[in-house]
Amino acid sequence: MNFPTKKTQTSNFINKANLGMQLEEEINATNLYYLTKDLAVIYKKPTPVQIVKVDYPMRSKAVITEAYYKTPSTTDYNGIYKGYYIDFEAKENHNKTAFPLANIHPHQYKHLLNIYEHGGIGFIIIAWNHYSENYLLPIKALEKFWHRMENDGRKSITYLEIKENSLLIKEGYNPRLDYLKAVDYYLDSNPELIKKTI
Amino acid sequence: MNFPTKKTQTSNFINKANLGMQLEEEINATNLYYLTKDLAVIYKKPTPVQIVKVDYPMRSKAVITEAYYKTPSTTDYNGIYKGYYIDFEAKENHNKTAFPLANIHPHQYKHLLNIYEHGGIGFIIIAWNHYSENYLLPIKALEKFWHRMENDGRKSITYLEIKENSLLIKEGYNPRLDYLKAVDYYLDSNPELIKKTI
Repeated sequence: MNFPTKKTQTSNFINKANLGMQLEEEINATNLYYLTKDLAVIYKKPTPVQIVKVDYPMRSKAVITEAYYKTPSTTDYNGIYKGYYIDFEAKENHNKTAFPLANIHPHQYKHLLNIYEHGGIGFIIIAWNHYSENYLLPIKALEKFWHRMENDGRKSITYLEIKENSLLIKEGYNPRLDYLKAVDYYLDSNPELIKKTI
Repeated sequence: MNFPTKKTQTSNFINKANLGMQLEEEINATNLYYLTKDLAVIYKKPTPVQIVKVDYPMRSKAVITEAYYKTPSTTDYNGIYKGYYIDFEAKENHNKTAFPLANIHPHQYKHLLNIYEHGGIGFIIIAWNHYSENYLLPIKALEKFWHRMENDGRKSITYLEIKENSLLIKEGYNPRLDYLKAVDYYLDSNPELIKKTI
């Protein structure tokens, strides 16, 4: 679809914002499906907010009148699947050729590695918007690219590397983004990539 | 310590508010201890807030100017311990003789039972302020009192019942509230009370 030139920038902005919401909405809808089908119990954590001022108007509920967004200390999603503790972060990638590691906070990376060391399942979901593809990258696969960056190598993961080191998540109507299928695949074939036996 | 009569009510109010914060602070300090000692990775979830209005003042960070507290859909704390998914709610009890079940939202009760069914460890921590005691009540022990309430029985758990069905949590300097010791006890002696083998 072609937009008139004048509107292009606004439209792009809106599209990107929509795509940003889209991944979160797709995961939330998928989690609701898993919950309803009794397959897993996985929730998005609330956005952390520093509350500074609260008003208590007469006969109505408390109104927060001054608050600030805080940096999350962990990841966006966690829960339980097949008895395993599950923990992940979901990221949109608007870049065509590579996924910049700056998308992941160092404390989130460390948190996911920590989860792995404690016997949990940690990964990131990357929505590669340019190709409308979603990938599940296990924390132990992410680790080698992180180490490369720390050793002054490239600060991103190329599209080819993502294809080689992560699993394409099947999209559908319901569930929208069946990422637990990818978890199943790893549990069956490469458990050491997502789960440490303790 | 005796306060002048006129101030007693205010002081009581402040004391109770402090006690309310105290349990949360004690658990947070304990979780930090567990994290630092690499024993468990357990965090408090952020308070869920419905954000309505956000201002973006020039050259400063976004200010939330209208927001409301939302009812949490799950519990306050979750994480991983010894490879197990851990999930719990912490409640102050200001009542001397019984713990009113109204302190627990029905969806929180259902959530904890659900965690149990999926092989996780679910419980509530009750701070019995009158006796300065803290108890860990496994979800399957809570279940029978919940059923009693649903069958038109009493809507609370008596102090004696708590003593018989939960474990007193040892208090100390660091960790402040060593609740994982109570989890260990149940895992060793009554695993069916907190964890279902799946």
